[in-house]
Order: sequence, then C-alpha cells, then structure tokens
Amino acid sequence: MKIVRLPKELQKLALQVRQSGRTIGLVPTMGFLHAGHLSLIDEAKKRADFVIVSVFVNPVQFGPNEDLDKYPRDFEHDRALCEEHGADVIFAPAPGDMYAADRSVWVEETQLSRGMCGALRPGHFRGVCTVVAKLFNLAQPNVAVFGQKDAQQAQVIRRMVRDLDFPVEIVTAPLVRDADGVALSSRNKYLTPAERERARVLSRSLMAAARGELDCDGLRKAIEAESDKVDYVVWFDADTLEAPGPDTKCILAAAAAYFGRTRLIDNILIQVKK
Amino acid sequence: MKIVRLPKELQKLALQVRQSGRTIGLVPTMGFLHAGHLSLIDEAKKRADFVIVSVFVNPVQFGPNEDLDKYPRDFEHDRALCEEHGADVIFAPAPGDMYAADRSVWVEETQLSRGMCGALRPGHFRGVCTVVAKLFNLAQPNVAVFGQKDAQQAQVIRRMVRDLDFPVEIVTAPLVRDADGVALSSRNKYLTPAERERARVLSRSLMAAARGELDCDGLRKAIEAESDKVDYVVWFDADTLEAPGPDTKCILAAAAAYFGRTRLIDNILIQVKK
Repeated sequence: MKIVRLPKELQKLALQVRQSGRTIGLVPTMGFLHAGHLSLIDEAKKRADFVIVSVFVNPVQFGPNEDLDKYPRDFEHDRALCEEHGADVIFAPAPGDMYAADRSVWVEETQLSRGMCGALRPGHFRGVCTVVAKLFNLAQPNVAVFGQKDAQQAQVIRRMVRDLDFPVEIVTAPLVRDADGVALSSRNKYLTPAERERARVLSRSLMAAARGELDCDGLRKAIEAESDKVDYVVWFDADTLEAPGPDTKCILAAAAAYFGRTRLIDNILIQVKK
Repeated sequence: MKIVRLPKELQKLALQVRQSGRTIGLVPTMGFLHAGHLSLIDEAKKRADFVIVSVFVNPVQFGPNEDLDKYPRDFEHDRALCEEHGADVIFAPAPGDMYAADRSVWVEETQLSRGMCGALRPGHFRGVCTVVAKLFNLAQPNVAVFGQKDAQQAQVIRRMVRDLDFPVEIVTAPLVRDADGVALSSRNKYLTPAERERARVLSRSLMAAARGELDCDGLRKAIEAESDKVDYVVWFDADTLEAPGPDTKCILAAAAAYFGRTRLIDNILIQVKK
C-alpha cells in the first residue's frame, strides 16, 4: 500500500491507473477509522480494481466553534487498518496542500443541505461538497462509497454528482452499530461511560420508530429525556429530505443530539408499506 | 463530425476516447461562431487528438433582464464551421437535458468574480463556473481553450481549475479583431452601422493606453465620449484582477460599455516595463 501526501501526485497516479484500464474506488474519510469505515473499504474493494482511502480532517467543513482541533487522529492505526483491508493507496494530504491561502472556489448545494445538520452547521455541506469535488478530481474514481450514517451527506453528494455530471457512481453502505446499538463514530471516543449509556437512546428509539412503536413526536420525547440537547429529530422522505408525501417510498428518521459536549447523529430508513 | 445532444452520451464517448489513449481538447462556446471561436478550435486541434466544441447558450449565466432569448443562434452555420475546422464532436444539448428542474448545486468563485462583469451581472460567473464544471465532467478534456476576449472569465476558470483540482490545462487564446479594430463578438450582430462606428472607440482607446498615450482616467473619458453608457473601465493586475502593485507583471486594461442597447466588452494586456 502506497501513502500519498501530495494532491497532484495522487492525481497523476489515478490517471495512470485509469489509463491502464483498471477501475478506481474511493472511500473519503476523516480518519480515526472504525469498523464503519472498514465496511466502506470492503465495499469499494468489491466494486473496483484499485481502492483509494482518503484520510483528511477537512478544515473547511468545520464551523469556528466546532471540534476541528480536537477531532481525533491516529494515522498509524489508520494506515494499518487500510493495509489490512487491502486498500491500494492511502491519501493523507496536509491542509495547506489541499487549500491555497487565497482559495476562492466553492461547491454549494442549496436545497437538500438546508435542514438537519446543514441548518445547525452553516457552511458544513459547502465544505463537504467542495472537498468531495476535489477528491473526485484527484482520485478519478469510478465509484465512491459513503456511509448511511451521514444520511444527509450521502444525499447531498448524490445531488452534486447528478447536477455537476461527475462520472462517479455513489454507493451508500449501511450504518454499522456497536454491540450496545450505538452507531459507530469517531466522536464516540469523547463520551464518558455514563454519556455512552444515555447515548443508546438514539438507536433504541429509532428502532422503536421503525417497528411502528413511536411516531416522530414520540421519538423526539424519548431522545429529549436522555440527551442534554436535541439538535433535531426529523421524519423525512429519504430522497427529498422534506416532509413525506403520497409518493414517499422510504422514510428517513434521523436525530442529532448532545450527550455531554459530544454531538452524535443517528438515523434509520423505514420502508413505507403501501 | 458527430453531433451529440445528450450529456450522458457525450460523457460515454469522451471516456472511451480517453480510454483509447487519445487526448481531448474542449472549446466551450455559446454558438453563433465567428473567427474568434474558430481560432480557439484551431488551437485545440494543435494541442489535442480529439476536439469537442460545445454550443450551448447557457441559461443560468444570463440575468433576468439580459439577452438570453434574443441571443443569436445559427446551428447549421456553427455545424459547418466546426466541420471545416476539424472538430470531432459538436455538443449541442437542450437546456432541459443540462439542468434538472430541481437543480440545486452551484460552483461559485468568490474573489476574482467580484468586480468588472461580475459586479454588473450578479450570478453570471456562478452560471459560467457551473456550466464549465459540468462540461469538464462530460467532455473529460485534457485541455480547454478559452478566449482572452472574456479576460475575467478566463481568470475565474483558471482559479476554479486550481481550487477544485480539475485535471485540465487551461489555454487562453488571443482576442481576435475585425478589420476596423472591433473585437469579434456574437453580440456585434445587434449593432447598427452608426453604433458600430462608435464602438471602435473601445479598441482604439485600449490600444492608445497600451502605447502609453492614455492612462486609466483618459481611457474612461475617451470611452464615455463615444458610448451610451460605461459599465466599467479598469486597470488591473492581470492575475489578481485587483489594483496593480509592485509585483504586477502585466496590466489588464478592460472596458464594458453600451452602444445603443448592446453591451460590448474589450481588453488589452500591457506588459509592465521593469
């Protein structure tokens, strides 16, 4: 497995791989890899000849009061896991090599980004779209794998690919949970044992909603009872990220809430019975 | 020469051409081709194995009160000229095939687009960047050729390529003038003979400025005297599109003015003597 630090070096390599007739799978991550990320790498391995994992804590998707500086990093661990799962390249650029000091071009999604995490994290999805557009141009993937954990992000990226005509297939891989039901997240590391115990309310109540035992209001009340602050609880059409309508085929029930100072997100997809 | 109407068909063809080891040159145009455009096609032919000319009057770069509907079109003439100049493909999509009704993703340049045409045509460069990003993804060019006539556009596109890491070389081809000095433009068609005579002030005064006979103020006064309205006259560092500084290597003197109801632009590059 090759470690690439410079964007232009990755692009040169990727263009050579494509020229040789091999397909490329890209797994964009912010590192501190867990089993959720590894399932994305495994998925990319199934779908492409050559797998590139990017490990980049993208500064422009963090707000001024968010956890950019304390976001957990462990490159040696990430490197070992990528190697073990058969990645061909780990791309780990320095922020200064990814963004010029006088950078002035942004990719912005203006519809699906408005609610949920976008409403509470202004500029977040602009930063996500911009870095993913850059990664697509650098890594030249045929297929890119994202996690259903970041449900809104996956929809925003799909829209970006559609509207800007990137020749990239987007695959969304299922959310992976720990034995106690908590969705895997690099931010789980911040939780105290007591916060972790309370954080189980997210998966527990979302699963109850999927079984029809809680409606959106009940879901919100359940999460409010155990968390320190609820950012949102939504019950949306999974495609439009708007209120469900008569054509809705699948519901996205999703929540973001704080446990202590840690903000966690979780979601579940619920097929509509017709 | 092949005429392609559907974006996905162009992308499929372009990926095949690249896969075969040939290089692609792209010349994005809004059609109604004149000798200026043809010089871009000739330049692309010199630099790439396979040349794609796009002919698309891009609705999203026109403001609500601009000339989208009356912008001149003559596809049969364009087709004949592209064929004559050895283009391999003319890509002429329908607006509805380029933009979904619920499109929501934009590429925006926020620095170089602020002055000049960007200040007077809000959203113009957002529309330009978005369509050029789409054309890059569809046509998969190694090199794209733009005209120096649209000096600000060329700089904005260069910045977009840098900041989003498109693997595309940008070539700016010199402005082409008619025998009377007027810069070639599809919009010259709108001019009455008397307006055309007055419009010569743009090239005449820009050339005088390049010879050191007019400063920025003199340039403005000369253009004001002959035109019906001046949109801008600027004297910028050609790279930063800001006021020249001690490091400025090249001045962009540029103007936009109305002759009757027709808005024309023109510019000249002036090397700084050190």
